[in-house]
Amino acid sequence: MSAAVGRRARGGGGAARRAERTAVRRDTARFIERNIPNFELLNDEALEIIEHNAETVLEEIGVNFVENPAALERWKEAGADVKGERVRIPRGLARQLCATAPSQFTQAARNPERNVEIGGRNLVLAPVYGPPFVRDAAGGRRYATMEDFRNFVKLGYMSKWLHHSGGTVCEPTDVPVNKRHLDMLLAHMTLSDKPFMGSVTEPVRAADSVEMAKILFGADFVDQNTVMTSLININSPLTFDSVMMGALEVYARANQAAIISPFIVGGAMAPVTVAGTLTQVLAEVLAGVAYSQIIRPGAPVIFGAFVTSIDMNSGAPTFGTPEAAHITYGAGQLARRLGLPYRSGGGFCGSKLPDAQAGYESANSLNMALLAGVNFMLHSCGWLEGGLVSSYEKFVMDADQLGTLHHLARGISTDENGQAMDAIREVGPGGHYLGCSHTQANFKSAFWRSDLLDYKPFETWEEEGARDTQALAGVRVQKLLADYEAPALDPGIHEALTDYVARKKESMPDTFT
Amino acid sequence: MSAAVGRRARGGGGAARRAERTAVRRDTARFIERNIPNFELLNDEALEIIEHNAETVLEEIGVNFVENPAALERWKEAGADVKGERVRIPRGLARQLCATAPSQFTQAARNPERNVEIGGRNLVLAPVYGPPFVRDAAGGRRYATMEDFRNFVKLGYMSKWLHHSGGTVCEPTDVPVNKRHLDMLLAHMTLSDKPFMGSVTEPVRAADSVEMAKILFGADFVDQNTVMTSLININSPLTFDSVMMGALEVYARANQAAIISPFIVGGAMAPVTVAGTLTQVLAEVLAGVAYSQIIRPGAPVIFGAFVTSIDMNSGAPTFGTPEAAHITYGAGQLARRLGLPYRSGGGFCGSKLPDAQAGYESANSLNMALLAGVNFMLHSCGWLEGGLVSSYEKFVMDADQLGTLHHLARGISTDENGQAMDAIREVGPGGHYLGCSHTQANFKSAFWRSDLLDYKPFETWEEEGARDTQALAGVRVQKLLADYEAPALDPGIHEALTDYVARKKESMPDTFT
Repeated sequence: MSAAVGRRARGGGGAARRAERTAVRRDTARFIERNIPNFELLNDEALEIIEHNAETVLEEIGVNFVENPAALERWKEAGADVKGERVRIPRGLARQLCATAPSQFTQAARNPERNVEIGGRNLVLAPVYGPPFVRDAAGGRRYATMEDFRNFVKLGYMSKWLHHSGGTVCEPTDVPVNKRHLDMLLAHMTLSDKPFMGSVTEPVRAADSVEMAKILFGADFVDQNTVMTSLININSPLTFDSVMMGALEVYARANQAAIISPFIVGGAMAPVTVAGTLTQVLAEVLAGVAYSQIIRPGAPVIFGAFVTSIDMNSGAPTFGTPEAAHITYGAGQLARRLGLPYRSGGGFCGSKLPDAQAGYESANSLNMALLAGVNFMLHSCGWLEGGLVSSYEKFVMDADQLGTLHHLARGISTDENGQAMDAIREVGPGGHYLGCSHTQANFKSAFWRSDLLDYKPFETWEEEGARDTQALAGVRVQKLLADYEAPALDPGIHEALTDYVARKKESMPDTFT
Repeated sequence: MSAAVGRRARGGGGAARRAERTAVRRDTARFIERNIPNFELLNDEALEIIEHNAETVLEEIGVNFVENPAALERWKEAGADVKGERVRIPRGLARQLCATAPSQFTQAARNPERNVEIGGRNLVLAPVYGPPFVRDAAGGRRYATMEDFRNFVKLGYMSKWLHHSGGTVCEPTDVPVNKRHLDMLLAHMTLSDKPFMGSVTEPVRAADSVEMAKILFGADFVDQNTVMTSLININSPLTFDSVMMGALEVYARANQAAIISPFIVGGAMAPVTVAGTLTQVLAEVLAGVAYSQIIRPGAPVIFGAFVTSIDMNSGAPTFGTPEAAHITYGAGQLARRLGLPYRSGGGFCGSKLPDAQAGYESANSLNMALLAGVNFMLHSCGWLEGGLVSSYEKFVMDADQLGTLHHLARGISTDENGQAMDAIREVGPGGHYLGCSHTQANFKSAFWRSDLLDYKPFETWEEEGARDTQALAGVRVQKLLADYEAPALDPGIHEALTDYVARKKESMPDTFT
């Protein structure tokens, strides 16, 4: 630990207070607190069938914990039937182990105004995760670099409707594989004051994430608070590899949050039917969450479901499809019955360009996720080409659409002002509401308004170059990056973080695979 | 009536049988029968407040029936308080009058396989209605002509997920205003065998619509069946003009269906709040439907709600917004409580181009309409630029997306095949589902597949010209129009229709306003 950590041991509040005094204030909406019902697609009978079948899968088929003798030992102690790497879990045991996981938790940001509540009726929005490529209209499609990564963190920081800075907003392929997590964490910690995710690609990188968080927040603060939510993918079907489980072990022990998430392309990693996929998703999440609670009862976790289906003609994964929507709705119901926060959804699309296909598919996905009761939405902006590409333009397009989710979630007010009977009386048959006093009093906040899309008269739009959404988004990207100013950070902490990264990098040879 | 009408008096079935024997068969999906719940946004208390307020509006403020002394007389007889053109309707009277309207009705098509059931849990999809302009990538934006009109009817006929041929798919501005309804009806009747809408722009044109329907279906058939659903807009707020009411009177007397539809840009024609708008919508529909039942108890009608909001900066109407979604959900609940079929939704957007904005906004609108329980969706494809433009490319883009609504509405099967436990057993941890027998047995129908969107590998897509959705749609438009073949129609009927149009045209001077 560096000297700076010692100085920060009094808690994470000091940096936050300093930030508040000196930073250029960026307006960020509070996470969504739904005031609308969830869409309950499945009835109780169907849900009970799926729950019963998931227990059957765990008991009779079991799951594999691969190259992880310690995990097998732990499962044996917990009462599972372990043969080789196969873990068969008696009916009810996994659900019982899951009971210690909290139904809601706070992830702290270094700016406490940006803290998020994950679970309950809340929805926290985070950007795209994982693409090796980036695209913009000017530069086309190319391998992502650390400069791109920093740009996306900046765009996330500048995005009003985005609550979370995310994790691997793109894969910085110009930095050695074994070192890039350090640069990525440094970017999230210094270029944004929103909450962020830790590294999961090796247990040692998860440990680095915790160490750097201790520098940023103070060691005591990290011991007592969740400051990272990280993405633990399951190798569907029914397989838990040692890398992801190793990272999960690090985070759970440190009381840091993990999304336990089947990664499913329906028809390939799960059955082609929705009920079958939901059964497998539930079995996998039960096993993964149970394991997290074996490591540390009470460790914060999220019921994850990354689901898409396959195009049987080309073998390509497809997005924004009805089957993905069905699974997202159903998995939300299963998560709520299990009492766990739920991660799913995103601005998913298969399109190569931020065009109409991207718009349709992403809107299908975003709307469904809101109504499905998702609590944490990774990939909510910037996702293109089935997740192979982080798109600059699509990032700001999606981020703008996230505003519609905020307004949808508000629901309908039926108080006296909402009822507007005075307005109807004042205007009467054949009248016009624009000038009436009720309209004047309410119009500023009544309607959601895009900061990006075109609402201009045709002639004006044509004179200004007849630009499509991608062109308008390109202008907005440039404007946001030009206007960016980093949120204030204690220089001692900044230096300590930079030192940690430098020291760690020096201690290792570069690896690129 | 022409000789042909006499010949057709035996009923509409003959033309249909003949069509079946000789026509090139175009695959059209049956109207959607939902197997999923509706999204019930408002609770009972909120709905009761709105219903109470709507009755207060009718009783205390009233509605205007303009330049229509006969309507005022009818209202007086029905028990309303009439002063000048203002009709105040005692609490409960309008709802009581609405009770004779059917909750569901069949609209017959000349091909009985294309008949649609409007109401209940069904959703019937119809194309864009009313734009004076058309656009395609090659020709840009221009005034619509009769050739465009015929092209859109052909595209509608060729669209698998579209159940209805619609009405004014674009406004053929090259035909005199007082004659164009004749050419439009002739196009729907001869170029498609799907159900269609009648003219509403003058009562005499509604009468022409009924006469031409009698030629097509036979007079007796039309007397006994609903063969047209027409769009009667209310001049919101609270005003019923004599042209639209005159057309409604013609259709109701002929037992032909009418959509009674407030036309609302929130903040201009209704209050800026959602609950206030819903109150006004309900009051207007109650008055309009009640009037239809005064004309003919039992006449088929639809509770309409065309709702959008205004951009307070530019004054432009906006589409695909959260407030429009709220109103669409709420109005659906009100319609169901009133026991009437519900019309709302559409592939709405404000964009000038079929770009990402069009995709986002249209998908927002389409998804919401499905979950809101809409029974008849006008504007489900082809709508561009706030309804000023019928877009060729967007027509086929939306029409393709309508497939997602069909699959979403199917719900989730939990029968043995749906549960897929055999597949999960067969594949096991770490396996792959592509080759398993359950996948082989189900893959063809398991997933919805776009006929338009790009699912290809990046390299293939790039080699083929890196086309965006608009470009792919343009190719599809050309292909559909090139492949088009008219459905078979009895030559005698065709001639009688053509004669009727020619005679009517000769009987009038041209007018262009």
